[in-house]
This record gives sequence, structure tokens and C-alpha cells, in this order.
Amino acid sequence: MNRKRGLQVLDEMLGKETARATRQTWTRIAPDFEKYVVGFLSGEVWARPGLDRKIKSLCTITALAALGRTRALELNIRMARKNGASRAEITEALLQIAPYAGFPAAWEALAILEQVFETK
Amino acid sequence: MNRKRGLQVLDEMLGKETARATRQTWTRIAPDFEKYVVGFLSGEVWARPGLDRKIKSLCTITALAALGRTRALELNIRMARKNGASRAEITEALLQIAPYAGFPAAWEALAILEQVFETK
Amino acid sequence: MNRKRGLQVLDEMLGKETARATRQTWTRIAPDFEKYVVGFLSGEVWARPGLDRKIKSLCTITALAALGRTRALELNIRMARKNGASRAEITEALLQIAPYAGFPAAWEALAILEQVFETK
Amino acid sequence: MNRKRGLQVLDEMLGKETARATRQTWTRIAPDFEKYVVGFLSGEVWARPGLDRKIKSLCTITALAALGRTRALELNIRMARKNGASRAEITEALLQIAPYAGFPAAWEALAILEQVFETK
Amino acid sequence: MNRKRGLQVLDEMLGKETARATRQTWTRIAPDFEKYVVGFLSGEVWARPGLDRKIKSLCTITALAALGRTRALELNIRMARKNGASRAEITEALLQIAPYAGFPAAWEALAILEQVFETK
Amino acid sequence: MNRKRGLQVLDEMLGKETARATRQTWTRIAPDFEKYVVGFLSGEVWARPGLDRKIKSLCTITALAALGRTRALELNIRMARKNGASRAEITEALLQIAPYAGFPAAWEALAILEQVFETK
Repeated sequence: MNRKRGLQVLDEMLGKETARATRQTWTRIAPDFEKYVVGFLSGEVWARPGLDRKIKSLCTITALAALGRTRALELNIRMARKNGASRAEITEALLQIAPYAGFPAAWEALAILEQVFETK
Repeated sequence: MNRKRGLQVLDEMLGKETARATRQTWTRIAPDFEKYVVGFLSGEVWARPGLDRKIKSLCTITALAALGRTRALELNIRMARKNGASRAEITEALLQIAPYAGFPAAWEALAILEQVFETK
Repeated sequence: MNRKRGLQVLDEMLGKETARATRQTWTRIAPDFEKYVVGFLSGEVWARPGLDRKIKSLCTITALAALGRTRALELNIRMARKNGASRAEITEALLQIAPYAGFPAAWEALAILEQVFETK
Repeated sequence: MNRKRGLQVLDEMLGKETARATRQTWTRIAPDFEKYVVGFLSGEVWARPGLDRKIKSLCTITALAALGRTRALELNIRMARKNGASRAEITEALLQIAPYAGFPAAWEALAILEQVFETK
Repeated sequence: MNRKRGLQVLDEMLGKETARATRQTWTRIAPDFEKYVVGFLSGEVWARPGLDRKIKSLCTITALAALGRTRALELNIRMARKNGASRAEITEALLQIAPYAGFPAAWEALAILEQVFETK
Repeated sequence: MNRKRGLQVLDEMLGKETARATRQTWTRIAPDFEKYVVGFLSGEVWARPGLDRKIKSLCTITALAALGRTRALELNIRMARKNGASRAEITEALLQIAPYAGFPAAWEALAILEQVFETK
């Protein structure tokens, strides 16, 4: 795990303020959950080269939509935006997987997408 | 639905021979299943511009890995290859979603990936 | 896709007013999502003969309950009602799948069923 | 639980011979698994009036297809057949849920359906 | 099914007052749902010896977290508490399955865990 | 990540020989998959104190059964055995979650359990 790099990557993908607030939420529910997400998910997996972050964001969003994990979906849509994905591109990715994961999975994700892009 | 375009897109993504064989499988289990997959999934959804096919393939593969749909996963890995995705890129997409969909989901997909790229 | 027939079928299954409001929601999140749901899901798949609409509704509801897609579940319970399914029949279908998809899946769906039938 | 009724219902839905062989499989993996499936699933849930068995079979099959439970799917397709569902009707139910649970889920189930109806 | 034992077990795992209120919710959505949950899930499955209730609770919670069944998760976390599981132990179980079911599944469950233990 | 501890833990949970063979499989499909599973899953998550390994195994198995991840299920049943879980205890854990994740999920897992304990 690489906490230093993880904090850096998270700041880049969420903005310093939202990153800190999100980490506080994780720490409150379980300090080691925060430690793993920052050090491993952010500091190791997201830090990998090989695919650019926008593509990684789109892949993560379609997987989360398929699984119906709404909490992580909302966060990853915010990160996708900072990673350079437009609302149109995320919409395309969700329309693409609609017949594979089912239209209801895409509907749920598109509704969250709308919220994220309308609110702020 | 757009059958003509769907046949064209499918040929491009699978090669003429595999496309025909795959369509025959679908027709045998249910003629209208083949009709929908060719006319709608291939002819409408895959035919959309907005995201290039390689990215669409990666998004579809991660969604299918999350859902554990091995049959469609195998087919989509073949299509991803024709759509320009290297084994390394598909591997990256699967490592990216491993902590989101779980490492067992990634394991299953990576094993299928290996088979597809080793066999032919 | 058959938009004209899709609009007709949707009106029959939701009532003109709710159908329009629901389509507006879909258009707002993504115009082509609305186009696909109306033209393909409603205009092609729901329009198939072969099984009567009440049975189709029950099958769709049990699949959605198994997948935990609450948003589509609520809509499909409304449509099931217009398609002639009583609350008792939908309850039976959900009790039937409880030991297959798990009682928590049935619980969630029965709670939505109650809401739909109590509210209006 | 009602074992006597459960045995009766299972015999009706699988035929005496297949019912016995299937119960032996369950007993071998865990005697109480067999006890619960016969006494509760078969003797209580399947024994409910309220919906005819053919409709129950179709609902169970679509839920299992959505969840990707292939082993139970194969068994339930056999039972659906004895419960009066034709291959065409089961196909219709699976095409109906294809855009809701995803076409890959329907594909898997249609392939099992073909096997069951071709083999015997 | 064993209703008498089921009522007893439920009272022990939820407290008399919460048990009654929860059963009323089930009765309202479907009387036979309550009958099955009390008589079979509580009176048969939970009543089995072989594993102590704390371990059963942890196993049930991790399965529900994996499936994303939030309503049943909340109830089972309450029962886990009465069954002797500390917040720290439930947290450990959820961290254990995080890389298997995905961190988003654990996140959702940890957030519900926090609510249950903070509120009352 | 802690590779040294991860290798140690894996050896303890699988036996030196099976551990090596399994790691080779992972390396072949993707070297970094092996690196993450050994260094993070084994070296960090499994290495946590707080719950004994037998309980962790049972929790992991029920989560994997719920998700239908058969490949990881087989491996985790082997590890559960080395972690001190008897076939009877694993059976109990699977019967416990059967009404929550559905009997088909438990059936699949019990069949794998039988294979693992019969074969070697």
C-alpha cells in the first residue's frame, strides 16, 4: 500500500476538500476501511499506468452500475468528472451496458449521473 | 432496430466466420434472440458514435465480469480484441475493477481472457 | 424498434398521464434512453404475443426483485396492475421466488408492492 | 414444513424417478438441505394455491436466470415442462426479461433450455 | 416449520418489543411472509445447533452485504448485536469480505452498521 | 501490502505445495493479480487479528456463495479446512444463508464443498 500516493491521487480525483470530507466518512465507519481505500485502491490500483484515468473511471462506473452499488457509483461519477469524462461520455458508457446489465441498472446510474451534474 | 448495420458491425467485431457461427448458435436457441442481438444490440447500441469501440468493449467486459456472465464475457473478449484492445489493456481494466467487484470476479474474467488469447 | 407501437403499449400499461411523466424522466436523464425503452422494450419486447401481459409482468417483477432494481420494480408493479395482476397475485409470485432469490429480495419487493397499492 | 405433500409435489413436477435421483443428490451433499427443499420449498411454497404452477415455474425461471443460478435453472426448466410450460412459452418469458436482466442472462438460460428440451 | 420456537428465537434475537413491531411489518405486507420467516427462517434455520448464533449472524451479514440487501442487513445487524457480536467484530467480518465482494459492498454495510450502533 | 506475511499466511492456509501452484496460476493470468492477492488480500486482510481465521473463512464462503463465484469458493473451502473448519461447520454456515441468498446459491456451494472434501 502507498498512502502518500493514495492521498495525492484522491485529491486529484475529488478535489482536496471533497477528498478530505470523504475520507472522514470512511474513518468514522472504520479507520482501516479508510486506510485500505486510500493506500490500496487509490495508492496502488488507481495509480497504475497502462490505462488512462478517464477510461478507468468509465470501466468502474459500468461495473458499479451492473452491481447496483449506488453509494460508490455517486462517488465514482464525481471522480470520473475530474478525470476528464463528460456527462455525454458517461451516458454513452451506460447506454452501452444497458442491454448487457439490463436497462434498470442503467436507469439507476443515469439518475445518479443527472444528480451529480445538476447539483454542482 | 437496424439488422443490416448490425450484421456489418458484428462482422467487423468478430470476423465474418465467427460472426456467422455465433449467430447460428443464437438462432438455434431462439430466432428472435438472434434478431434482437443483431438488430438492437449490434445495430443500434454498438453502432452509436460518442465513444470508440475499444472503450465500449472495456466497459462491457468490466460490467460482465461484475455480473459473472461467463458466456458473454468470452464473446466480448473476442470482440474487444478485434476492436483494438490488447491483452494488457483488458488486464488493466480487470485489475481496476477487482477491488470494486471483488477479486474473484476479476479472477474468473482473467482466466477467460487467458484462454481467448492463448487459444487463437 | 417501433416507437409508435411502443407509445401505445406504454399508454396501455401505465395510463396516458403516468406514461408521459415517466417518459419525461427518461428523456431528461438521456433522450436515447427514452428512445430505446419506448421503441425496443415497449414497442418490440412487450409487444410480442406468445404470453399474456399479466404473466410477463409477473416474470419481470420476480427478475427485478432478484436483482434488487427498486426503481424499475416500482414502475413494473404499476404496469402489472394495469395488466390485470391483483396485489394477491403479485404477492404469490414474490412468495414463490422468496426461497430461490432469498427472503430479503422478496421483502424489499413486497414493501414496494404495498406502497404502490396503498398510495393510489 | 410438510414432507408428505412435498414428496407428492416433487413427484408431480419431476416424475418419480428423477425426483428420487435429485433428492439423493441433495441428501448426499447435506441431509437437511434435502429436508428443507422437500418440506418447505416443495411442501409449503410450491404447494400454495393462488397462482397455477406453470406461472410459478415461469417466474422462478426468470428469477434464476437473473441470478445466474445454472444448476437450479436446469432443474426448474425440467419442472416447468411437467408443469405444462412449452419450450415456446419459456422462451417468451426469457426474451421478456432479456432487456431487464441483460441479454447475457437470457442467453445462458436459453442455452440450458435448449439442452433440456433436446436431450430428452 | 415451528412457529412457537420461531417466536422464541426472534424475541431473543431482537427483544420482545422490536420483534413484535418487525413481525407486524411483515404481516402487513403479506401474512404468509411473516408465517414463513417466523416458522421456517427463525424456527428452523436459526434454531439449528451446530454453529453458535454470533457466527451465524456474521455469516448472514456478509452474505447480505455481498447481495446489497440493505433492509435485511439492518435487521440482521440488530440481531447480531443481541447475539453477542460487537461492532468491532462485525466490522472485522465486513473488512474481511471487502476484497471478495468489493469495497463498495462493505462500505454500504459499514454505513448501516454505524447507524444501528449510534442510534440506539 | 506485505508480501512476506502474505506468502506465510497463504502457506498456512493452503499448504506450501498448493499455495505455490495457486500462485503460479495467478501469475500466469496476470503477475500483478498475484501480487495484489498475496500482498493485500493475504498479507493485509487475512493477517488482521480481531476474528479467528475459521470465522473469517465461514464469512468469506457465505459471501462467495451469495455471489456465485465458484472458482474462489473452491479455493476458500480448501483454506477453510486448513483454518480448522469441519465439513459440518461449513455445511451449517451454508444452510444458515440458504433462505437469505436463496437455496440455489447454497446448493451450488454445497456441491463444491462435497467435491473438495471427497476428493482429497
